Amino acid sequence: MSSTNIKPAPVAPASVPADGPAAAGSFKMFHRVLDWITSERMQLINITDRINEIVRKSGVRDGIVHLQSLHTTTAVFLNEWQDALVHDVKIFFEQTVAGEAYWRHNDPEHSDCERRNADSHLRGMMMGQTLSLQVRNSAVLLGTWQSIILAEFDGPRSRSMSVQVSGI
Amino acid sequence: MSSTNIKPAPVAPASVPADGPAAAGSFKMFHRVLDWITSERMQLINITDRINEIVRKSGVRDGIVHLQSLHTTTAVFLNEWQDALVHDVKIFFEQTVAGEAYWRHNDPEHSDCERRNADSHLRGMMMGQTLSLQVRNSAVLLGTWQSIILAEFDGPRSRSMSVQVSGI
Amino acid sequence: MSSTNIKPAPVAPASVPADGPAAAGSFKMFHRVLDWITSERMQLINITDRINEIVRKSGVRDGIVHLQSLHTTTAVFLNEWQDALVHDVKIFFEQTVAGEAYWRHNDPEHSDCERRNADSHLRGMMMGQTLSLQVRNSAVLLGTWQSIILAEFDGPRSRSMSVQVSGI
Repeated sequence: MSSTNIKPAPVAPASVPADGPAAAGSFKMFHRVLDWITSERMQLINITDRINEIVRKSGVRDGIVHLQSLHTTTAVFLNEWQDALVHDVKIFFEQTVAGEAYWRHNDPEHSDCERRNADSHLRGMMMGQTLSLQVRNSAVLLGTWQSIILAEFDGPRSRSMSVQVSGI
Repeated sequence: MSSTNIKPAPVAPASVPADGPAAAGSFKMFHRVLDWITSERMQLINITDRINEIVRKSGVRDGIVHLQSLHTTTAVFLNEWQDALVHDVKIFFEQTVAGEAYWRHNDPEHSDCERRNADSHLRGMMMGQTLSLQVRNSAVLLGTWQSIILAEFDGPRSRSMSVQVSGI
Repeated sequence: MSSTNIKPAPVAPASVPADGPAAAGSFKMFHRVLDWITSERMQLINITDRINEIVRKSGVRDGIVHLQSLHTTTAVFLNEWQDALVHDVKIFFEQTVAGEAYWRHNDPEHSDCERRNADSHLRGMMMGQTLSLQVRNSAVLLGTWQSIILAEFDGPRSRSMSVQVSGI
């Protein structure tokens, strides 16, 4: 079948650091909490620069940065940061989880939640609240078009993300 | 555009541990396998307490707990654990991947799988079988409303999850 | 409710390594970049063997292998590798994100992207470009039916994935 029709690519893109041998060193761990106040019910925020700043401060050269948004009605993921696409992403979430459908979580007979935010929960769950990215040469490893995006699905709210950098 | 209209929040929620400096220490790793017998075709299970018990036993104070369900027709993710919302989550999975649609995996002409579980595979794939969460002060870091949920999409079955705790 | 009706399973499957005590050791980190040239617009590639080969070479016995595809219009995830199911997975992506719908990212009035690949971005975002898996006894820990799958959503292209193995 066609899905096995693969040839090795000749060279890696210039932006990718060269392969390195196994490195052993003293294991380090660094931790910060980032806070935001969001201003809309559904809102996307490009947090790439703030994450890179934490990684630079951490003193970790090679390892993992782990992001964990501490709220069920948020998400964190990668995508290109372009105005037109950011608009499409919001449309996609509205289409995939219909806010105006019947949800038991929004029904006072079944739920004591007054926010009527079942759609926010389902969007957050589908996309996930955690993201692990590699750290290489004291920076977050990202492809040319990859930005780190925080999604607010039930704003405006005060939001926190725990960021942990570990490695050598 | 509105998505850049962000102000820093004044304070972190009380439940979030304060920022800490970089810590270096002896790297530790701990491993357990958790087992379940599920009782329904689609079933959600709150596994937060069992994961926290493993983290406490691990002796790791700060690090990562990695969960990996070992079955393609399961998933693990975060959400609020509320009866009404758990019901909505099941409805969402049924709507997003239609079980009664035509799937080649269920067609004896194309597949030797007799479980007719294409929907289970697609739901498990969409949600993912792995989850990494931070460990802080010998506990899983979770926001107030975040519970760890195991989803069974093709039960009743015997299921296993590999849990790895690593850090300092 | 039924979702709490859980009994502990009597035994773990034979393929799962037995529980081990906490292990401490010298932390190691290993890094490789994998490259592919894809041949179709949407294409699934089973990369399990190539990832296992890297893990074997890494010298890491117990730890984590982290995969990060460096392109927003790709994804990496787990599923069974069966021809009929691979076909269904493609159908699922086409149904969940409609390529022929109106997307602002494809509209020259709003976007300078000439690839008309909004659907590719949304599929990549939904599935994610990163995956963490446990390493046990110098191999990737995978359930019997779990294969590691790279998804191309905007081929044919040259693609790279950064693979990091860390642990003891």
